[in-house]
Amino acid sequence: MFTDEYFMKLAYREAEAAFDQDEIPVGCVVVSNGQIIAKAHNLTETLNDVTAHAEMQAITSSAEFLGGKYLKNCTMYITLEPCVMCAGALAWSQISRVVIGTRDEQRGFINKNISLHPKTELTIGILENECAEIVKEFFRGKR
Amino acid sequence: MFTDEYFMKLAYREAEAAFDQDEIPVGCVVVSNGQIIAKAHNLTETLNDVTAHAEMQAITSSAEFLGGKYLKNCTMYITLEPCVMCAGALAWSQISRVVIGTRDEQRGFINKNISLHPKTELTIGILENECAEIVKEFFRGKR
Repeated sequence: MFTDEYFMKLAYREAEAAFDQDEIPVGCVVVSNGQIIAKAHNLTETLNDVTAHAEMQAITSSAEFLGGKYLKNCTMYITLEPCVMCAGALAWSQISRVVIGTRDEQRGFINKNISLHPKTELTIGILENECAEIVKEFFRGKR
Repeated sequence: MFTDEYFMKLAYREAEAAFDQDEIPVGCVVVSNGQIIAKAHNLTETLNDVTAHAEMQAITSSAEFLGGKYLKNCTMYITLEPCVMCAGALAWSQISRVVIGTRDEQRGFINKNISLHPKTELTIGILENECAEIVKEFFRGKR
């Protein structure tokens, strides 16, 4: 029951919350030992802060919850491939696993040849269509 | 009088404050139209947060001061070359100029072939010896 699809669906709901606030719709959840310890969505416009990506907020919240800065035994489910900034932060966090909904070929970290931490397992393509479609829909509305 | 060395000296004082708190000694200031609008030093241990690098805090503070997320007409003076995370954040901020004290060949963004924003002018090597020495001294004390 607690599959990757289950948790990505919750990340997707965070992306929907961002969409409703006129933010680029990206959402994430962090799971530790089967428990959700952080949920976040992009808030760059609301907070007037380029660093307020979903992943950055979730890393900070998770560390606060865990009482330590390393995200051991944690999995982040994120609807869109992290950017350079967020991938750098995830690398510092030594998170155990990152699950990505859909690729961001242009702004994502993979095509920039940036690595996560050697300990981090990476899975790509969970709820891929929904995670891609919500971003496309957002930008269609902006034209 | 308000030279690059002058402002880097203030960034260096921030690095000293980090050193005194047993944090990896990196400091920065952000200057806009000759005025200092943000000062910060590394607080990753104190805050238990891998994202609490000097640059990240200063970007957030500067945007709050300016009331907008883009750091137009701003220069960041940072004692140590930014990491991947911070370079990614600086790129999103579209900051006008970044002045680096000393290189970080291993963890800095330059050797990872990451770019700042095309608008961002980059200067390297202001107060280089002091900025490098304080980091070396910190790690000597850790051995």
